[in-house]
Amino acid sequence: MTTTRSDFVSAIRAQDSFLLLTHRRPDGDTLGSAAALCRGLRALGKQASILHNPDAIEKYSPFLQGLTVPQAPEGAVLLAVDIASESLLPDNARPLAGKIQLCIDHHGSNTGYAGLSWVQPECAACGELVIDLLEQLGVPISAAMASALYLALSTDTGCFRFSNTTPNTLRRAAQMQEAGAETFAINQQFFSIKSLARLRLETMLGERLEVLAGGRIAVCSLTPELMRVCGATDADIEDLANFPRQIEGVAAAVYIRVLPSGEAKISLRTDPGIDASRICAHLGGGGHAAAAGAAVPEGLEAARAKILDAIALETGLA
Amino acid sequence: MTTTRSDFVSAIRAQDSFLLLTHRRPDGDTLGSAAALCRGLRALGKQASILHNPDAIEKYSPFLQGLTVPQAPEGAVLLAVDIASESLLPDNARPLAGKIQLCIDHHGSNTGYAGLSWVQPECAACGELVIDLLEQLGVPISAAMASALYLALSTDTGCFRFSNTTPNTLRRAAQMQEAGAETFAINQQFFSIKSLARLRLETMLGERLEVLAGGRIAVCSLTPELMRVCGATDADIEDLANFPRQIEGVAAAVYIRVLPSGEAKISLRTDPGIDASRICAHLGGGGHAAAAGAAVPEGLEAARAKILDAIALETGLA
Repeated sequence: MTTTRSDFVSAIRAQDSFLLLTHRRPDGDTLGSAAALCRGLRALGKQASILHNPDAIEKYSPFLQGLTVPQAPEGAVLLAVDIASESLLPDNARPLAGKIQLCIDHHGSNTGYAGLSWVQPECAACGELVIDLLEQLGVPISAAMASALYLALSTDTGCFRFSNTTPNTLRRAAQMQEAGAETFAINQQFFSIKSLARLRLETMLGERLEVLAGGRIAVCSLTPELMRVCGATDADIEDLANFPRQIEGVAAAVYIRVLPSGEAKISLRTDPGIDASRICAHLGGGGHAAAAGAAVPEGLEAARAKILDAIALETGLA
Repeated sequence: MTTTRSDFVSAIRAQDSFLLLTHRRPDGDTLGSAAALCRGLRALGKQASILHNPDAIEKYSPFLQGLTVPQAPEGAVLLAVDIASESLLPDNARPLAGKIQLCIDHHGSNTGYAGLSWVQPECAACGELVIDLLEQLGVPISAAMASALYLALSTDTGCFRFSNTTPNTLRRAAQMQEAGAETFAINQQFFSIKSLARLRLETMLGERLEVLAGGRIAVCSLTPELMRVCGATDADIEDLANFPRQIEGVAAAVYIRVLPSGEAKISLRTDPGIDASRICAHLGGGGHAAAAGAAVPEGLEAARAKILDAIALETGLA
């Protein structure tokens, strides 16, 4: 059942022990929001911890230090943070599906799986709701909470660049900076800085970039050899599928990642008016209108030929 | 002479006709601040225009539409916007040096060349001062002013990523969004999308990047030849000085641009704790603690050697 802020605050006040859940392939919003809320609940004298998320990558560890537990403590109320549906629980939280009492979320697509859900889709980040909640609970926001919340706000807005950024997001960011958030360090680590391996990868992708159809289509590919040459790990290729998307005038951006098995995974990003999911359906794939994908077991060259054929078929661009 | 906000406001009120000046190689802060202030002065019923800046690249044109004039109107008070020193005037404004009555600026290095200067170095962008000034003057901020001011705020902070971003910057950005600034379109155009020529330049810079001092110093350089090979214009190299700054672990990022004349222009960006302006002072340059510059007439190799020497002298990094 979805509820109002004041009823959600009352529900939190009424309980003494919480286990916070985050979503699979967790980002700075689910982890930062959970970290700040966990600290806030502890500041109120409650028991609170976050269920260890096996998918969380190393760079989030400092925010979670001292907050995570390997399994659900006896009798803890399950509180989902930034999780739109139970299908998004990480593997180790799957057994908790159907038992989640509370949910704080900003996804309009929230399925209402929790006993009581406070969902505010107008918020760019779940972190905005957590700040609001902490204020309602009368918890002073510590520097550690502020940093976690700034991470949440900045992550879901691409550091305030995306169209979901609102005046409230920016003001909350200002407030977190005043509360001691290490804003510059977070901006640097998450939005400005890339590893030398990542820069080398981008340089090599740039060298190999194909621009077709008078600049409307861009194609680039990442192979295991390229990763080896650049000394890159999985952490270095996060979001690399957006690389060909950043070029002015490109309406269909194709990124092909060749796996060590030889299989090619295509990511297609398109402008409004070009349905990426229809194009990828020609290759047995799917997704959203603006971002879709397909797998081609025959490898890179076959993947390139097939996706360009499908783009030509659907858009006339060739 | 530097002055207080209230005396500066009085000086503006006392005059009826203004010509606004912007700095050479103008960015979104000098142009956006001047555009908003020009509109604000006109809203007060005053005569105001901006001296055409021959260096201004195409993408700024929409912000300047209807505001610029080719030469100084008779009797107009000269008002410098975001110009730290008269040496930064564009060529067509050089004859006005020594005659500038008013200056609004946020550079701590402002030389005090104007009759009356209002300088607030704690502001990340000159745009913050202009918003403050417009409020003091009682001018309602229109959507066009808000977009120009959002451009100013976002430009000088790398879209709120740089260390100069303060809670005030973020709150002013929120306020400009509420006043009708086209924040998302500006973010897209100025911070998300790049031209193919720009991508090619970055690729070649990546190929030629030097990483020194165990990864603490990065050096890259842009020559007229490289620009020619990439089909790049001045519009494609804006902010390219930040390119070496993005690498993990780099504390002093050096970017050297060689002009067609052979002169080398150094941009130095540094981590907190390393004063870029002190380092550049060794080469007769200056700027801010985190970003400074210097010119070396002898060219690329001399510039590279001198700036590395100055960094070693000030930081011990070598």
